Amino acid sequence: MKSVGRHLILELWGCKNLNSTEKVEQALREIVDACDVNLLDLRVYPFTPVGVTGVAVVSESHIMIHTWPEYGYAAIDVFTCGERRDPMAAVPVVREHFVPERIQVMEMARGIVG
Amino acid sequence: MKSVGRHLILELWGCKNLNSTEKVEQALREIVDACDVNLLDLRVYPFTPVGVTGVAVVSESHIMIHTWPEYGYAAIDVFTCGERRDPMAAVPVVREHFVPERIQVMEMARGIVG
Repeated sequence: MKSVGRHLILELWGCKNLNSTEKVEQALREIVDACDVNLLDLRVYPFTPVGVTGVAVVSESHIMIHTWPEYGYAAIDVFTCGERRDPMAAVPVVREHFVPERIQVMEMARGIVG
Repeated sequence: MKSVGRHLILELWGCKNLNSTEKVEQALREIVDACDVNLLDLRVYPFTPVGVTGVAVVSESHIMIHTWPEYGYAAIDVFTCGERRDPMAAVPVVREHFVPERIQVMEMARGIVG
């Protein structure tokens, strides 16, 4: 089965550091390195009263982090295209930065072309 | 079942207008309006030789469009939080702009809290 991209969907629960724009930015940068993708743009947005959104647009698609500190929850997406790239390399990075008690990982093949 | 967000995953095949940054931007703006979400940032990136990535960061999460004109394929994600928001409102907008021959829609509940 050949697909255009691999889309990793991560659900993290019981996390720390969810209200830190610095941690979100650092996690995005380290995921970019770990997945060996080419960064085009990185932005982090804090919310009031709490919560952070961070996005890294890469040539090979995107990495997105949304946090809800009030639930100890983060929704993270890592979408890569190109056969050399492995979005699973993001998992140890997010474990290190957000220290989840529980993590659920789902991988979707996007754009199945045959 | 209560969840933090609704994440719509769209696979579009047999599309038109996939190499147009203008169409991608216009589609993002109209999805923002249709879903009644609050736009924080909108960016569109053209690729060489073909392909476009567009992202709208909204207070209620994000909308992302990646196109592969060589396959007639677009991967679109519409992630919204907040009970009033309906990401399904994006579907007629993308149909209008990219005229897909075939569209697959999957909805994931993100952050199920009880």
